Formats: sequence, C-alpha cells, structure tokens
Amino acid sequence: MSDYMVKDASLAPEGRRLIEWAEAHMPVLRRIAERFRVEKPLEGVKVGCCLHVTKETAVLVRTLAAGGADIALCGSNPLSTQDEVAAALAEEGISVYAWRGQTKEEYYDCINRVLRKEPRLVHDDGADLITTLHSSSQELADSVICGFEETTTGVIRLKAMERDGVLRFPIIAVNDAKTKRLFDNRYGTGQSAVDGVIRATNILLAGKTVVVCGYGWVGRGIAMRARGLGANVIVTEVDPVKALEALMDGYRVMPLAEASRIGDVFITATGCTKVIRREHMEAMKDGAILANAGHFNVEIWIPDLEEISVRKRRVRRCVDEYLLRDGRRLYLLGEGRLVNLVCAEGHPPHVMDMSFANQALCAEYAIKNREKMENRVYLVPEEVDITVARLKLETMGVKIDELTEEQREYLESWRLGT
Amino acid sequence: MSDYMVKDASLAPEGRRLIEWAEAHMPVLRRIAERFRVEKPLEGVKVGCCLHVTKETAVLVRTLAAGGADIALCGSNPLSTQDEVAAALAEEGISVYAWRGQTKEEYYDCINRVLRKEPRLVHDDGADLITTLHSSSQELADSVICGFEETTTGVIRLKAMERDGVLRFPIIAVNDAKTKRLFDNRYGTGQSAVDGVIRATNILLAGKTVVVCGYGWVGRGIAMRARGLGANVIVTEVDPVKALEALMDGYRVMPLAEASRIGDVFITATGCTKVIRREHMEAMKDGAILANAGHFNVEIWIPDLEEISVRKRRVRRCVDEYLLRDGRRLYLLGEGRLVNLVCAEGHPPHVMDMSFANQALCAEYAIKNREKMENRVYLVPEEVDITVARLKLETMGVKIDELTEEQREYLESWRLGT
Amino acid sequence: MSDYMVKDASLAPEGRRLIEWAEAHMPVLRRIAERFRVEKPLEGVKVGCCLHVTKETAVLVRTLAAGGADIALCGSNPLSTQDEVAAALAEEGISVYAWRGQTKEEYYDCINRVLRKEPRLVHDDGADLITTLHSSSQELADSVICGFEETTTGVIRLKAMERDGVLRFPIIAVNDAKTKRLFDNRYGTGQSAVDGVIRATNILLAGKTVVVCGYGWVGRGIAMRARGLGANVIVTEVDPVKALEALMDGYRVMPLAEASRIGDVFITATGCTKVIRREHMEAMKDGAILANAGHFNVEIWIPDLEEISVRKRRVRRCVDEYLLRDGRRLYLLGEGRLVNLVCAEGHPPHVMDMSFANQALCAEYAIKNREKMENRVYLVPEEVDITVARLKLETMGVKIDELTEEQREYLESWRLGT
Amino acid sequence: MSDYMVKDASLAPEGRRLIEWAEAHMPVLRRIAERFRVEKPLEGVKVGCCLHVTKETAVLVRTLAAGGADIALCGSNPLSTQDEVAAALAEEGISVYAWRGQTKEEYYDCINRVLRKEPRLVHDDGADLITTLHSSSQELADSVICGFEETTTGVIRLKAMERDGVLRFPIIAVNDAKTKRLFDNRYGTGQSAVDGVIRATNILLAGKTVVVCGYGWVGRGIAMRARGLGANVIVTEVDPVKALEALMDGYRVMPLAEASRIGDVFITATGCTKVIRREHMEAMKDGAILANAGHFNVEIWIPDLEEISVRKRRVRRCVDEYLLRDGRRLYLLGEGRLVNLVCAEGHPPHVMDMSFANQALCAEYAIKNREKMENRVYLVPEEVDITVARLKLETMGVKIDELTEEQREYLESWRLGT
Repeated sequence: MSDYMVKDASLAPEGRRLIEWAEAHMPVLRRIAERFRVEKPLEGVKVGCCLHVTKETAVLVRTLAAGGADIALCGSNPLSTQDEVAAALAEEGISVYAWRGQTKEEYYDCINRVLRKEPRLVHDDGADLITTLHSSSQELADSVICGFEETTTGVIRLKAMERDGVLRFPIIAVNDAKTKRLFDNRYGTGQSAVDGVIRATNILLAGKTVVVCGYGWVGRGIAMRARGLGANVIVTEVDPVKALEALMDGYRVMPLAEASRIGDVFITATGCTKVIRREHMEAMKDGAILANAGHFNVEIWIPDLEEISVRKRRVRRCVDEYLLRDGRRLYLLGEGRLVNLVCAEGHPPHVMDMSFANQALCAEYAIKNREKMENRVYLVPEEVDITVARLKLETMGVKIDELTEEQREYLESWRLGT
Repeated sequence: MSDYMVKDASLAPEGRRLIEWAEAHMPVLRRIAERFRVEKPLEGVKVGCCLHVTKETAVLVRTLAAGGADIALCGSNPLSTQDEVAAALAEEGISVYAWRGQTKEEYYDCINRVLRKEPRLVHDDGADLITTLHSSSQELADSVICGFEETTTGVIRLKAMERDGVLRFPIIAVNDAKTKRLFDNRYGTGQSAVDGVIRATNILLAGKTVVVCGYGWVGRGIAMRARGLGANVIVTEVDPVKALEALMDGYRVMPLAEASRIGDVFITATGCTKVIRREHMEAMKDGAILANAGHFNVEIWIPDLEEISVRKRRVRRCVDEYLLRDGRRLYLLGEGRLVNLVCAEGHPPHVMDMSFANQALCAEYAIKNREKMENRVYLVPEEVDITVARLKLETMGVKIDELTEEQREYLESWRLGT
Repeated sequence: MSDYMVKDASLAPEGRRLIEWAEAHMPVLRRIAERFRVEKPLEGVKVGCCLHVTKETAVLVRTLAAGGADIALCGSNPLSTQDEVAAALAEEGISVYAWRGQTKEEYYDCINRVLRKEPRLVHDDGADLITTLHSSSQELADSVICGFEETTTGVIRLKAMERDGVLRFPIIAVNDAKTKRLFDNRYGTGQSAVDGVIRATNILLAGKTVVVCGYGWVGRGIAMRARGLGANVIVTEVDPVKALEALMDGYRVMPLAEASRIGDVFITATGCTKVIRREHMEAMKDGAILANAGHFNVEIWIPDLEEISVRKRRVRRCVDEYLLRDGRRLYLLGEGRLVNLVCAEGHPPHVMDMSFANQALCAEYAIKNREKMENRVYLVPEEVDITVARLKLETMGVKIDELTEEQREYLESWRLGT
Repeated sequence: MSDYMVKDASLAPEGRRLIEWAEAHMPVLRRIAERFRVEKPLEGVKVGCCLHVTKETAVLVRTLAAGGADIALCGSNPLSTQDEVAAALAEEGISVYAWRGQTKEEYYDCINRVLRKEPRLVHDDGADLITTLHSSSQELADSVICGFEETTTGVIRLKAMERDGVLRFPIIAVNDAKTKRLFDNRYGTGQSAVDGVIRATNILLAGKTVVVCGYGWVGRGIAMRARGLGANVIVTEVDPVKALEALMDGYRVMPLAEASRIGDVFITATGCTKVIRREHMEAMKDGAILANAGHFNVEIWIPDLEEISVRKRRVRRCVDEYLLRDGRRLYLLGEGRLVNLVCAEGHPPHVMDMSFANQALCAEYAIKNREKMENRVYLVPEEVDITVARLKLETMGVKIDELTEEQREYLESWRLGT
C-alpha cells in the first residue's frame, strides 16, 4: 500500500504527459524496462529514492517498478520537484513525498518518511538520504543491501565516510560511470545550466563575459556551451592542471578576485563552499548575474550577499535583485540553488537516459552480487558501463567499428616495434 | 485620449517589472530617451506601431513617447503578445490593442484600430500594417510621413511595392541597418530560436542532427548556435553562394529531400513559403521536431501536415504531436509561428536595444528630413547606423581605435604602392 | 615569341609538379579551360598579369592561354614568387619576369617589361601594374580594353582613381565578387595566414593571446582560425560596427595600445598603414611575434622597429629577431610582407580556384562587352558570380534545392501577409 | 669521450639556432636546468635516450646534461630526425647516432650503439630501446635503474611486459602524467598533425570532410583542430563510450567502411594496426589523402595500398601518389609515418616543455627513490605532475585561486548536506 504527500494530486494528467514526453526521449531505459518487465530482477525489493522529482526520474521509477520493486521517493532538493510529476507518480501507486518549495524541516521529514519504508536499496542524489541513514537510523542502515549515488558531491561525501570507516553498506558510485560522468555532468549540465540562466534572465550571451568557477566536467560543459552561444568565458580554478587545460582550450584563467571586476555572469560549478563571497561581490559590476550549478547552495555565499545589501526584491521569476549600498545591483538566480533545475527543467531526458540506465542496471547488479560486496564505495561495473553505451548508440541508430582478431592481438603484444 | 484592448489590465504590475528588466538591458535606448525627453523631436506626432508586443517593444514605445509622440500599438503576430506588457502599456496611456492568441479577424481588426488613429509615422514588423494601409486606407496612406520596417520579410514586400510603383509614402528599411541586420537577425534570432526549441522540448542538442533551412543572417545565427550547443548541423539553401559559405563554415549542405531523412530537428529561416512540405514530412524520422524562425507561419506547410496525420494533440506547452498513418510522430512547435517569440521570449533586450535605437532615430530623422524624402524604400542613414554602434560600444564600456590623420589620407590615396 | 627572366630555369620539372598538384585541386578552372580550349574567347589577345607567381596563378595563366591569350607575367610582390613555378611557366612559353627576393627596382623593372608587351587586358593584384600604366605609360593605358583587380587594397586604390577622374580604362573589381571576397579573403587567408605563422615559428597557438588588427573579411578569417586552433583572440578595429560584430562573435575588443601589452602574436589585416607602430612595439612583451596579412608591408611600421632596436638577426627562416634596448626581443615574420605567401604557400588552390575562375570569366566578359564599358570600376557581373558558385558546388559533388515556381512568385509578391 | 654518427656535422650552426628557438619557448625546462646546474642530481649517471631527435629533445638533453648526466641518443623513428639538431648536439659532446631516412637496420644499429654505452637510465619513445634491451641485452637490462616512456603506444607495450612478468627494471609511464597526456597528445598532436597535413598538401580544410580514426586524446585533438579550421569531421571508433563522446561533441560517428566513401582526408590515431586497409582504400574517392598520427606506421596498411596500385610517384615533398587500376589516385603523406614529425616539425616546444619537464623530473625522482622501486610500470608521482603544472602557469604569467582552510575542510567532510 502506498501513501503520498504532493502539492496537488489533480496535476496528475499534466504530469503523465510530461513523463510520457521524457519516456519518448529515454530509449535506453525503455529497453531496460521491457526486459525488467519479463525478468523481474527486483521482485519484492523495497527501494528508497532521494532524487530530483522530475519527469526523467519518473521514468527511472517506472523502470524499477517494472522490475518488481516497491518504491518510496522523496526529493533531493527543496526547490527542484516538478509538482505535476509528483502527482502522476502518486497516482501510479508510488509512495512519493515531495513538492516544490519545501522548508528544510519538510525536506528532512520527507527523507525520514522514505526511510520508514525500510528500503533495502537506496538511490541517492547528493547523499542526504544515505548520511541521514547513517546518522539517525543506523539499525536500518545495516539492513540495506546497497546504495547508489548520482552526484560528484555525494561521491565525495561517501568516500570521506569510507575513509573514516563509518560506511554501513556498499555503495556504487553511479556518478563515476563513464556513461554518466562524461555525459550527464558535461553535456547535460552544460546545456541546462546555460538554459537556466537564459530562461531566468533572457539576456543575450553573445558579447557577454561569463565567469565559470571550476573546470571539472560540469564547469567545462558550461564553459563550452557559454562560448558556443557567443560569450567570452573566463575560468577560475584551484587545480593547476585543470587551469592549464582551460587555458589551452582558449579561455582566460585568472583568480576570481580579478574576474569579479569584469564578469557579466558568474556560474559556480566547484562542489566547494563560499566560492563567491563578500570580497568578490563587492568588486562586481552593476547588473552582474550570479548562478550556481553545483549541488548545494553554498557556492555563492548568500549570507554575505544579504549582509552587503540594503534591499532585496524579486524582479522576475527566479531572479532576486540585491541592491548594494552604493546603488549597484546584483542578481541572484534561483536563490543560489542548482540553476538548471530551479530555473529550467534540469538535464534533458536524452542524457538522464544514460545516468538512470546505470542506476537501474546497478540495482539489478547489487541484488545479484550482494554476497560479494563489502562496505565500500564501488565503481560501476565495466559491463554495466559498456552495456549502457552500446544501448545508447543502438537506440540512436549509430554503428561503430569492431576490432579484428588480429588487431586485438596486436594491442596485447609488446614485441612488435618499428 | 487613449483607449485599449488587452487580455487583463490587472497584469500591469507584472508587465511593469518585465519592462523595467528590459529597460535595464537597453542602455542605448535609455540614452536616446534622455535626449528625446529634452529635445522632444516627435512632439505631437501620431505614431502607429504594428510590432511584437514584448517588453523590449515597450521600451521603444516609452522612448518615442519621451520624444513627444502619441502612440497607438497593435501586435504584429497573433501569438507573440506578452499580455502583462500590453496591460502595463495600457496603464501608461498607450492605445494598445493586442493579446496573445488572436484569430486572424481579431488581428486585422487591431491593425485597423491603429489606423483609425491616423498615424503620420508607422513602425511595422512584417509590413502587415503598411500593406493594409495601401489596400484599404489609401487616403490615409497619403498623409503618412514615413514608414519603418523591421524585418527582412517586410522589406522584401515593400521593395516589391516600390518596384510595382504603388508605394504612397517613403519607407526606411530599418531591417537593413548594419546595426540591425548584422546583430538582431544573427545573434538575436540565433540565440532565441534555439532557446525557443529548448524551452518547448527540453531536448539535448548535443549529438542531434539539426537541419537549418536558409543561410541568411537568421539561418547562420541559428546554425552557429545549434553547433555551439553540440548539434551536428545541416544547411539547405537555394542560393549557390550561400550554400558554399555554409560548406566552408563546416556544415553539411544538401537538398532538403535528403536532409529530411536524417534530421532530428528542423528550423526554417528562409522568408519563403512551403519550404517543408508533404514530401519532406513523409520522409522524416519518428520523433522529428519542426520549428519556424521566419516571419510568417508559411515556411512549414501545416495544411500538408494536417493532411498526412490521423491525430493531433498538444503534448507540452507549445508542442503539438502529429500522428502519421504509419505510427510515426512529428512535433510542431508554436503552431509553426516564430519559435523564438512563441516558445521563448523573443530577442534578448540587449540586441533589440540596437534595432529599436534605429527605429527611434529613424523616426527623428524622418520628421527632420520629410521634405527631401520620396516614395521609395530608403536605407537607414549611415549617421544613424554609426551613432547606434558608437552608443552601444560606449554603454558596454568598450573603447576602440581611431584612424590617425596620416592613415585617413593613406586610405584615400592611390599613389602609394609596393 | 617569348622571353623571360627567372631565377633558375632548371627548376621547371619541380614547378610542373607543383602546378599539376594545384590543377588537381582547381576543378572549376579546369572546366573553364576545357571550354576555352574549344571556344577560344581570348584568341590573339595580349594579356599582362601582375600576380603572385604561385602554382595557382600558373593554373590561371594556363587557362587564359587555353582561351588563346598571349601572356606576359610579373610578380605582384618582391618576396612571393615560387621560383620553380616561374621556371615551369617560362618553359611553357609564357613571358615571365619574376623571382623571389627582388629589389624594389627589379620589381618595377619587371612590371615595365610586361607593359612593353602592350597588353590589352591587365590582371592586377594590388594595382601596382595599373597605377604604373597610369603614371608612366599613359598612351599605352588608352589602348587597354579592361583591367581586373584581385585585392581589397587594389580596389580601394582604383576607386580613388575613379573618384579623381583619372581612370583611363574600365576595371572589373574581381575582389568584390561574392565568390571571391567571401571565400578567398576569409577562408583562404584565414587558414594560410595562421599557417604562415606556424610554419615560421612552430609555436603552439592553444593558450596564446592572438591580436588581430582589422575585422574585415581577412581579419575575421584569421580570428576564426586562430580561435579554432585554441588561441584567445583580441580584435582591434576603427569601425564601430565591425568592433561590435567582433564582440558578439565572442572576441575581446580593445584599442591596440592596450592589446599591445597582453598579446603573444599580432597579425595585421587592415589595408591601412602604420597600424603597429613605435608606441605599440614599446609596450609589447618579450618574445612577441609580429606578422602582416595585408597586401602591403606598411601595416607593421618597420622603420619604427628598426629605430628602437639595437640588434637584428635572422633566427629562423622567415623570422627576424629585433633586440630592444631593454633586452626584450620582438620577432618579425617575413619582413612584414604577406605572411601567408612569404612564410607559407599562399592561399590553397581550392579557394584560388574560385577567385581565378572569376578572373578568367571576367576576361571573357570584357572582350565580349568591351563596347559597353566605360572608364569605371565595375562589379563582377552577377552571372559570372553565380556561374562560379554553381561550378564549384558541382565539382564538389554538392547538390542544393531549387525554388519552386510558387515560391518564386511568393518572394516577388507583397500582398501575402499574416 | 663521445663519438657520434650524424648526416652532416657542418649543419651544427643551423642546429644551434633551432635549439635556441626551442629553448626560448620551453621556460619550464629552463627553470629545471637552472636548478639542475646547481644541484647536479644526475652527476655521473649514464643516460640512454631513444627519442625523436628534434630541437625540443635537444633542450631535454641539455637539461639532463646540466644535471650532470652523460648522454647517448638515438632516434625513435627512421624519418623524424632533424639533421641540423643532431649535428649541433654532436658538437656539444653528446653521443648522438641519428639521421633522417634510416633503413630499419641502421635504426636498430643506432639503438644498439646507445646500449653499448651501458645506460643506467633510459628515456624511450615507443619502447623500441627498452624492448631491445629486454630481448638482446638482458644482462645490461638488470643494471638499469629506471626507464621512462613517452608514448601511449610504448606504455601499452610495457604494461603488456609487466603483465607477462618479464620487466627487468622499473618504468615510469611519463606518457600518463596529466601534464603530459592531457596536453602533448591533445593540443600538441592536435595542432601539429593538422599542420603536417597542410604543409604536405596545402589544401584548404574548410569545407573538406576529414575522417579521424580513433577518439583518444590524440584523435580528439586532431578532430578539434580540423573542425577549428572549418572541416566537417567524422570520427570512427571501436570503443562505444568514446564513440558517444564524439557524437555529443557534434561529430558524425560511423564505421570506417562507410566513412571511406565520403572522406576527403583520413587521419589515423588509434595505436592499433591495419586500421585503414584494402577494403577501405578501395572505397575511397579519387584524390583522397591519407595520413597517420599514431606512433607506428602500421595504422594505414601500406602493403594493401601497394597491392591495389599500378603506379606510385612522389608528387610533392612528403606526398606519394598511388594510382589505382581504375584511375583513382590516393595520396599517402610521409610514408604513413607520424605526419606531424615527418611533414611538419613535430609538437611545438611550448607543449614539449611540459612533457620533457616530466622526463627530467622523473629522472631525478628515480635516482633519489631507486631503492623503493620495483620492476613495475609506475605512474608519474603526483608531486612531479603538480610541479610541472605550477611552473608552466608561473612562466605563462597566469595566477590561480587557492583553497581557503575552510574550503579544504569542507571538501573533506561528509556531514554537511542540504
């Protein structure tokens, strides 16, 4: 039996339409769901999900359900739930606890509701559910078969837990699958973060100076797309190797203190805290726009922004104007939360198709291999990664070459030289 | 005295906020408005505008009003009016007749309401108002001092009228100003058309095959931005020189009949009619997306689409699914109307700043030079073009070089060789 | 009967191989030559050419010869002659007077040798031959049927002459053909100028700051290619409209005085004089590289460079090191002459194919239409432009769309609106 | 005492000039050489190098010599030696055995001459010297302290040896340093391979279809630069993940059999053998150009090309024309050897600066840590990687951000969530 807490159950028809649209653009998950429907690899398994409640997540939930899972779902961010989708899932019998615009208390209350279902598999996005499990529901933690983490930020947290020896069940770092990390973070966030900035502001990027903080996969995706739309991009980094890559990719690289004076738009993608802080804000030009593409809303340090402002008001959906003492105005998008989810629709389904195919196949893998797994953070099994890539190419109608036997031998031999 | 017809006057506060946002990003028009407020070059002149009723147009209307003009405004497309903006303008005393979602009858009725104000200057976007003036209000036409046309499509129509000897007043082809045509059409439509496709569909462009029909300024802007977002772009053309440019720019070029079989997204930007028609639609892949960025909704020939379909339904805001007999589905965005205006917010204010600065300065020019002008289609005076460019650079904080006296002489001399 | 002056006649076999290679990549000229061989449109006409003596020019010369012309040829730059090609042409009976590394006296002597052949058609590149004709051989000038000018610089000079009323025969501005100007100047010089810099220096462009002076077709080609190779590009301009385009294309724009301090490589493409002068050189970083892509070697003002230097030496083929008083070193490529011709091989044949097809067809046109032409600077006839574009597409195996009858009518009508 | 075998000792002055030019563009190695000159970390150590004998390698050799090493050097490819550089090194007392255009016997004879010097450290490029050591000089192998391998190909061979348990001394995989692999292979080969194609052929890349075989770091560098020069790029791959990346980067992906029919230029970068073989050659268009950027000349299978041809001749320096039975002509560049080294000058010094700084610092590291090292293939120590990156940024005048203490803690903690 399922219960649920959503904003408005009557939004279900619109939610179904949204999910159907996503499903049409997630052919790999559709293929997996077809097989799951027959093979039922998750038959009777209780699954807890703490994920952005979007139309794409709904397709994953449907896939897990096709495999026989019994699912409870909460959001992984107070602002990212699509209420229509939540309503539709509730209607389909999923125990969903999520709505857009939660307080922190409501947010954690929903996580705890999921935990009360005693899930054996947990799919997380940012590790809030898994860390809650470890902090306040330790006995429950011990019965978990496996956890799956979707984000760079979450994996960093979970590896810290592994290092500290406190992990109580195995984790598969779905984020680190090549078919996830190389695609979702780069092409998905690249497009959708820039899309979020444009939907929020309707500014022309051509001719603007865009400062991207962080040159990991997310940062380089954003830099690439901002440049693709005509912006002049500056990259800031703390890692000298990544800084050099940004330089060789044709971007300017400089300390943020310096970039602050010339940027028109700032987008953070570091996974770190207090990246843009008072000293930077105070140096910015009138009209500067600030957005965050990192998982938590700590990259742009909002308390500093509040402190230096004399007035704050919402000037457009998703745009808050902060008026500084000297009359300059800074514009914060989506309250400093994930700009692609809050100001746009999050990653396109096409790319979530790959990330979530990893989630679904890893769930199946964990059930089959539970005996062999220890309380560690595992990479996604290579067979899963390759299966996802092959299915994706296949559903896109793209064929590639195969190594000949002779080539395979050549690559394994060391005796053949000049 | 003003009257008005808008969807909902109570939307005015939201409209004001939108206009304020646009104004903040249109510094050239703000500068012109400041001067107009003092010099009143349009004092008492009745001005009729048939323009997309957007927040940016509102800033132009305010600028003309600052110059002393008495303005009546209707929309230039049945689907492009932002109702909040119309409400705000009505509140400010503008005679505005526009709402989103007009029938063809309502559309022309609004044009006629503007004409009944007996305008002496007419700002047009697509030439519907000016051709109506010539068809059904000829005596009125004779009292018009000058018309101003914003679009390529409109200029083509007006030049045809000039050629046929039927023009009854002078026209300035604002569209052909370098500071309009080279910017608005290329960078403005380039970004906003792609933005419209993404807002409507949330598809990932990376890895998609995007077919751009037409390689004029609009088409090359779209191609550039689609590529900038990771798409593989195919261009179709009828002009061999433009086709060669597209090739050398690294795109594939082929007949549309061939491109139809491989495209994921089709965007028309030709200014022509029946570009995508039955034979093309029938060749398309399941899931193909069709959008138009040209002025009129005749480029994708919808009657053909209706004819070959067995069902049509709206699957997302701005997305209509056409189900073909064989089960394939084609998706038409924004009913085949301007995808950037219907599915997104139209051109960003930054670029409309330049186009509309030309409109405002040409209005001033026409009033000052009315004696000298004949019933022809004029280019924008070079002084206007250069003024707009200089103001734009200035407001962006960009400085450039000046020719030295010696250089100026060198450029004018022919005696200096190897 | 032909005579000739070349560096070394024994280089002819190598020259023939070079020409054959070019010919293989110039299919449009090959098609025209085939027709000329049958129709002999230039039978017995004396033709004087002042062109860069490269393998591509040789293919043009062969084409004119196929049409029946009797040709004399000199170089259009003291440093750009490919001696092997000159030798091969001499062997084929062309009166060629050209070698790499001429003094100014030798250069003009060769021009005069061509004039002594009393040409009736003159193909020029930079207008040195035509201005010499007007200065010192005026009686000869009066018997010239038509001149053809290949460069922007030359056309500027010839239009100045037209304006001053001193032109003694008609000119066709081949440079201004769409199939020349839009391709040769942009894609041809874009690639070959950057190629020249790399061949001369072998520097890595990725991560370098490249300053491009001038954003005409040549400048934007260079900027595009430098960026395409990973450079961070700064554009300097005197024209505010072009400066804005550069900005919107994502480049930084600033005065040269400012760019001088941060550039690693400077490339001039202005058609003007004294663009990079003492004040700029003195601000440059140690190791800065200077190259010119404009027609004359006056853009980088070498006398200034000589004046501020204490030592000059050749450190690589085509690279001169200037040691400044304070120990900084500046590197001048190809003595400030056309870097693509002097340090690399000039435009690739693929693009010269289009430019020279215009030269050949314009020669034919002038002979056929000599009665109608006045002493003015003419545009290339549109029929020639379109013929070149169509032949080029055809030989590349590319097909394009054709307008339907209905579309043609639509484009000519003004009555069809919303 | 040194002996040497070079083509022409009198080329030394030109060689010195070339080396000086490289040195001016390799500031990181200069810094290391300064320190080595003082600290003498390699005092008296015999070092054997099997590297491309280029001006950049000479700067590495000088750096090792500054550290006190006694060096013997042979080439790592029969066609890549710059004879002027070899002469200059001989003059400086290096035991150099290398000239351009060796037979296979001469090539291995030179390797054996280096081995006869009984080197304790060996720097290799492709692993020919190290595998020779293991095959025919095993007693010598046992006295080697450490080997260093520069290429992907070599590392694959050495890891195969490690796997087979036959390694007789430790190896540091210099190729796998982030400051090597991410830069040299991508930006270095990217630019220089395309440069090699252009120098060899002078073709215009704009509008050409370029097929890149392999989408590793080298392949993506080449694809990026070919596109940057206006080409339409097709990628072929055997790895589904890389194939998907290429797709999302906007390239077309297809089997080589299909690409063979449409490519104008083919460049291999796979590290594998018989990539382009008879079946592909037979499908190619007349005039197709074939080049290899992989380490060994086995990627384009020349025996197949010979077999299907009726005539072969050299038409330009580095270009061999193969005439097929049906009249089609295929052009092979640089005899299928590394196109960037054979047809151009190899990687620019700027990027070799980083690769060779790793070689120099790894040599120092191996001497200091020889006791701890086993007969395995090691990664470059992270401290070396970071030192190289920091020195490179410093010498480029680029500053970056540092983590604050609070940020460092944040990144290590897992308790902070939403």
